[in-house]
Amino acid sequence: MDVMEAIKGRRSIRQFTDEPIEKDKLERLLEAARWAPSGGNLQKWRFVVVTSASQRELVKKFAPGIFAVPTAFIVICAEVEADANEWKQRLYLADCSIASQNIMLAAYEMGIGTCVALSYAKSAISEILELPENVEPMLVVTLGYPAEDPQPPPRFELSEMAFEELYGEEWKP
Amino acid sequence: MDVMEAIKGRRSIRQFTDEPIEKDKLERLLEAARWAPSGGNLQKWRFVVVTSASQRELVKKFAPGIFAVPTAFIVICAEVEADANEWKQRLYLADCSIASQNIMLAAYEMGIGTCVALSYAKSAISEILELPENVEPMLVVTLGYPAEDPQPPPRFELSEMAFEELYGEEWKP
Repeated sequence: MDVMEAIKGRRSIRQFTDEPIEKDKLERLLEAARWAPSGGNLQKWRFVVVTSASQRELVKKFAPGIFAVPTAFIVICAEVEADANEWKQRLYLADCSIASQNIMLAAYEMGIGTCVALSYAKSAISEILELPENVEPMLVVTLGYPAEDPQPPPRFELSEMAFEELYGEEWKP
Repeated sequence: MDVMEAIKGRRSIRQFTDEPIEKDKLERLLEAARWAPSGGNLQKWRFVVVTSASQRELVKKFAPGIFAVPTAFIVICAEVEADANEWKQRLYLADCSIASQNIMLAAYEMGIGTCVALSYAKSAISEILELPENVEPMLVVTLGYPAEDPQPPPRFELSEMAFEELYGEEWKP
C-alpha cells in the first residue's frame, strides 16, 4: 500500500473483533517503531505489548478515552533521566509520538485498526506494567481487527492551517 | 512505495541539492499532515512553509542542530490556549509530532529528504515567522532533494526495548 494511501485512509478505530493479532504481526509493528527518527539517536522509547486478557482489562480501566477492550495494546514509554530538563522531556514525547505513527500506519497496511490515546492514569498504568521509577508511559496505542468502518472526520482546509513564509499569509495552491 | 518500505528506508537527510521542491509536492506534504490523527480532532496544528532564501537563512540561524540551509522548512506550530494545562500541551506536541512523521514518510515516497528538529530558539523563530502570541513553534522539519545517502544508524534490538505484558519481560519473537 502506498504511503499516501495509508496516511489518507487510516482512521482511528475504536471497535474491534475478537480475533487476536498474530505475534509476527505485532513484531512487525515493533520493527516499524524501531525505525522512527530519534533525536540524537537516543532511542529512549520502550514498548510494552499487552495481549493477556487480564492485563488488557486493567489497562483499559485506567485509560478512560478507550471505549472497548482492544485485542492488544502497545504502551509506549520513555526512559527519562531523573534530571531531564523540559526540552529532553519534550524530545522523548516527540520521539515516542512519531514511533506511534509508524505503528499505526504499518498496522493499517496489515489490516489492523489502531487508536492512540494520551488520557490515562499514569501511576496506575505504571503499576500495572511494573514500570521502573525512571520509565514513564507516554502514549497508549490500542490495536485490533476493525469491527467498524468510520467516515473521515471533518478537517480544516489547508487555507485554514497552512501559511507561506509568515503566519497569516494563507497557503495558496 | 509500501508503508513498511518507507518506514525502514527513510533516513534523516542533512545535505540537500539546490533543486527547489515543486509547490504541488509541498502541498501534498501538507495534505499528508492534515490526515494525521488528532486528539479530540482539535487540530491545533499550524504549518508555516518557508521557501524564500531570506527566511530560510533566518530559520537556520536560530536552529543550531541544522547543518545546512535546506530547500524548504515546514515549521509545525500549535495554537495553545493561554490556560492550556500540561496534559493539553503534551497532546498538542504529540499531534504535531505525528503530523511531522506523515510529512517525512510522504516526502520519502516522493524522493524528498527530511530531518526533524526540536532544537531552536523559540522566541527568535516566533519573531521570524510572525507567530501570534498564542501560537508556539513545536517542531522544525527541513526538506530538500538529498545530496547524501546515509547508512542506517545503529538501533537497539527489539529484545532491548520491547516487553511482553510487563516491563522487564523481554520480547521474544
